Amino acid sequence: MTKPAAYDDNNIFAKILRGEIPSHRIYEDQHTVAFMDVMPQAPGHVLVVPKAPSRNILDADPATLAHAITVVQKVAKALEEVFDADGVFIAQFNEPAAGQTVFHLHFHVIPRHEGVALKPHSGKMEDGAVLAANAEKIRAALARSSS
Amino acid sequence: MTKPAAYDDNNIFAKILRGEIPSHRIYEDQHTVAFMDVMPQAPGHVLVVPKAPSRNILDADPATLAHAITVVQKVAKALEEVFDADGVFIAQFNEPAAGQTVFHLHFHVIPRHEGVALKPHSGKMEDGAVLAANAEKIRAALARSSS
Repeated sequence: MTKPAAYDDNNIFAKILRGEIPSHRIYEDQHTVAFMDVMPQAPGHVLVVPKAPSRNILDADPATLAHAITVVQKVAKALEEVFDADGVFIAQFNEPAAGQTVFHLHFHVIPRHEGVALKPHSGKMEDGAVLAANAEKIRAALARSSS
Repeated sequence: MTKPAAYDDNNIFAKILRGEIPSHRIYEDQHTVAFMDVMPQAPGHVLVVPKAPSRNILDADPATLAHAITVVQKVAKALEEVFDADGVFIAQFNEPAAGQTVFHLHFHVIPRHEGVALKPHSGKMEDGAVLAANAEKIRAALARSSS
């Protein structure tokens, strides 16, 4: 493909990382944050976002990816527990042709239930109170698993 | 969910790892292999498979995941180049409700092109000659990038 655009730190996840835009955070460490997707494809849809600036997996530092996937695993286990999920879907989109809509590297972690289809990516905005309540349950599960 | 079944080393990827079933391998290192998906959702669809036995991300060793995602990145870059892709989709399914059909941890790495929809997961078997030709091109790209 043509060379992708350079990283632009005005993207919405960069603003969330800088605290300029609020988010329902469920996890943070030195290298990574995780927060609720505001347009969830299923209840409990979480985004795992490295703090280091990269557009997507194609320009990311391998060490950043290696840490992020261990956070994805922690979140996947917590979602399985909190939402009594039958499965967990992990997706990572690179460039618009693959479905990427925010140009800061991120992983989608989505609880799945038998017979329940996913809603469209970037569909309907979820009620803030619902996101806050789900975030609180996930934070509690992560705290239990790390203690 | 109810406790998932234990790892079963009769799954098809375990057989591929043991060499009991052939595959179009494009990459191998101490911890990981990557080979062509025989039912590609798009031309160049590759599976990255850790050698360590785990059912999926929910029971995997974090170190296994950390290494595997760096191989996913290498493969994604190679696919972008070889297939002149506009994007790359990475998917990782855990348990049948999330679309998992083979119960050995794996990542799907799929080239995407603008306006070209993905074929269904586990759809039609691709011709072996097509898979072999694509595998050869990807191996060459990986060899160039590592030299």
